[in-house]
Amino acid sequence: MSEVVIQCKYIISGEECNKIIKNGSIIIEDNKIINVGKIDEMKKYVTGHDKIERMNHVAIPAFINAHTHLPETLLRGICDSSKLIEWLYDYVWPFESHMTAEDAYYGASLGALELIESGVAGFIDQYFFVESIEKVVKESKLRALLCPSLFDGTPETGSIEDTWNHIKKFLHSRNNIIKEKDSLLKYGIGPHAPYTVPKEYLLKVSEIAEKYNIPIHIHISETEKEVSDFRKQHQLTPLEYLENLSLLKNKILAAHCVYPSGRDYEIMKKYKVTVLHNPQSNLKLSSGIAPVFKYIEKNIDVVVGTDGNASNNNLDVLEEVRTAALLQKFLAKDPTVLQNYTALKIGTTAGSKIFGLEKAGIIENAIADITLFSLSGAHSWPQNDIISNVLYSASSGDVNDLIVNGKFLYLNREHQTLNKERIIEKSTKIAERILCEMRK
Amino acid sequence: MSEVVIQCKYIISGEECNKIIKNGSIIIEDNKIINVGKIDEMKKYVTGHDKIERMNHVAIPAFINAHTHLPETLLRGICDSSKLIEWLYDYVWPFESHMTAEDAYYGASLGALELIESGVAGFIDQYFFVESIEKVVKESKLRALLCPSLFDGTPETGSIEDTWNHIKKFLHSRNNIIKEKDSLLKYGIGPHAPYTVPKEYLLKVSEIAEKYNIPIHIHISETEKEVSDFRKQHQLTPLEYLENLSLLKNKILAAHCVYPSGRDYEIMKKYKVTVLHNPQSNLKLSSGIAPVFKYIEKNIDVVVGTDGNASNNNLDVLEEVRTAALLQKFLAKDPTVLQNYTALKIGTTAGSKIFGLEKAGIIENAIADITLFSLSGAHSWPQNDIISNVLYSASSGDVNDLIVNGKFLYLNREHQTLNKERIIEKSTKIAERILCEMRK
Repeated sequence: MSEVVIQCKYIISGEECNKIIKNGSIIIEDNKIINVGKIDEMKKYVTGHDKIERMNHVAIPAFINAHTHLPETLLRGICDSSKLIEWLYDYVWPFESHMTAEDAYYGASLGALELIESGVAGFIDQYFFVESIEKVVKESKLRALLCPSLFDGTPETGSIEDTWNHIKKFLHSRNNIIKEKDSLLKYGIGPHAPYTVPKEYLLKVSEIAEKYNIPIHIHISETEKEVSDFRKQHQLTPLEYLENLSLLKNKILAAHCVYPSGRDYEIMKKYKVTVLHNPQSNLKLSSGIAPVFKYIEKNIDVVVGTDGNASNNNLDVLEEVRTAALLQKFLAKDPTVLQNYTALKIGTTAGSKIFGLEKAGIIENAIADITLFSLSGAHSWPQNDIISNVLYSASSGDVNDLIVNGKFLYLNREHQTLNKERIIEKSTKIAERILCEMRK
Repeated sequence: MSEVVIQCKYIISGEECNKIIKNGSIIIEDNKIINVGKIDEMKKYVTGHDKIERMNHVAIPAFINAHTHLPETLLRGICDSSKLIEWLYDYVWPFESHMTAEDAYYGASLGALELIESGVAGFIDQYFFVESIEKVVKESKLRALLCPSLFDGTPETGSIEDTWNHIKKFLHSRNNIIKEKDSLLKYGIGPHAPYTVPKEYLLKVSEIAEKYNIPIHIHISETEKEVSDFRKQHQLTPLEYLENLSLLKNKILAAHCVYPSGRDYEIMKKYKVTVLHNPQSNLKLSSGIAPVFKYIEKNIDVVVGTDGNASNNNLDVLEEVRTAALLQKFLAKDPTVLQNYTALKIGTTAGSKIFGLEKAGIIENAIADITLFSLSGAHSWPQNDIISNVLYSASSGDVNDLIVNGKFLYLNREHQTLNKERIIEKSTKIAERILCEMRK
């Protein structure tokens, strides 16, 4: 597919996701949107291009899942309704200790299937077994920013020293891809959190991030206790501490940020920290609600993620932006915060920029990352406000097609890149095997 | 269909929704489940019964939508991100003032399509134009408890006196259906709220509810301001006030209950008040989060609803129970509250009882109200815990079939009772017409 015209009932256009085109055409050449407008005005393109008719559909910029741990998909549902410590020590870590690189590959493959079926074009990951996930990204043709996890005791490499050496070697070997501007694969580095990674390693992380000009993806202020313990120990907030260590000269992707305090807002603004907001995971683990409406008021960048399948338990970004919008109205005690198009934007175009895309959204000269929702469900009618219908009434079950980088990964609900049957069969067996090993 | 065997990969059984049968059969005769068990043990039923194979599906008790205003479906998306007063005065009431009985019929029909596609077997409604909704219930073959709204200035009847007279006549004319134990149609009465309905009418409501032995469906303590204003005026909470007026001798279905205070918990327990919990609507209008975990701790009955499509904006009960579970973990600061099966129960079997069903759930001798979810989506794998997968990973897009009172209303994603195309066409035109009239 190098030239294609997609005709839709609605297109949600504009970088801000606030422009609606009714009966519109999107013209894609190679990986780029070259034109968007009313069908009537675009007739000249219809000859010579493949035509995809979606006249009972709405096209939106594809979702970005800004924080996840893709191989965790194997752990779906193994532990709900547990306190964080029990969840980690009795379930997540024991499960992961049985995981091999091949297991992680199939877990990530299952996650990739799910991302595609949910209309998600790209994801930002933090996990070990980065080569396994990388293989999945190449096969699926999704967009990804892979940030190998650094902490003490990963099931892959063990000690933090070995993990560090592995990451260093890995990034070195990917130097050529890192330099490619248009690669679907991007890399970062994922020191787990300021309270789990020793200072000496944080300094090394900063150095290597600067060397390769890659972002640092780190968990920040996820729980109240974590922040108060950290402040007691260091007399600084986690972000103030990173500032003191000069880490913030690098691009920081800060997952969670549920409890900003001290100078955090000022720091986020000054260093252009991007907040990765995971509302459902934060509720499920009783962590809290991040003050996203305040971040947005202060022009701090926010993008939405699901967190891993062990704490969500799906990768559905639409559900996540809906939850984000609802929660902020509650938290602010003001239903006017997080307008519909802003909620959509923090799940779509706002995230695209992290992948180095200069233009994002269904607009001229942007890379074609597009999700098509079917309007066949009764919940899609009437269409008094199509943006509202997508944000508050649709479900991922309506996703009909996904285009990433100009290529259909999902066409009329059929996968174009991955072998779904085989992946489900393999990953199910792996999860069963590991759960069985854990019981021994 | 009088005798049918449904074979499923999983059945979520038990009144508490906590029993899992793998590779199970459900035997239905007429409107009743006569047997549930392993396929192997049920072979004798396979001859002589129609066999429905759903070996990549999970059967769960069908959802109940415990609080809605079905014709409001016409208003979907007309006003998000607004304060309650603007939402009511500038959007909802002006729209409703243009609504005719025929408009309400098509609005409710569209809502019925949506309920069916979301796997919802029954709904508890409070609205005017009750005859229009009743017609939809008869045609759709859904289960419903219809509670005509009583307040001053309905678009249908105008003054509260005229509305009262209309309701009185209506209930009198339905006396025979009210006496039928097994009717899919049940009736109640819907005084809007203690702060909108004058005392003399609340007393009349109580009298008529007692006369016909029907429940009173009323909005209670939805917002903090409403409660504090009411307490200032009456020195009583809304529930204490109803107790003083002796209304609580009747069955009370209390929508919202976001701000219990004073003796409210004690009253709810003493008079077996049922709380109708609408978490997404309460967030969207910035009302708050009802303390459901406390209600459950105190053995107060809670069932989940969506509220109307003007404040949600869908009728998806699965989404609502998921939100309920997540919010309670946040509110209680304890992820162990609202275990998975309890969350499922307050969206399914707990609600069935309000319809007079003595047994509820996929168990022997219960009426067959069943939803079948497809497990074909990647998000349904692996199946480490099928109850968790339904509660946290599925979407209404997975609903494949709905059985109400032993009859398929939705079979392999095809409506069996309603004409979807015609309803969508008519209701869309009506919404367009009313929005156009409003702009004049």
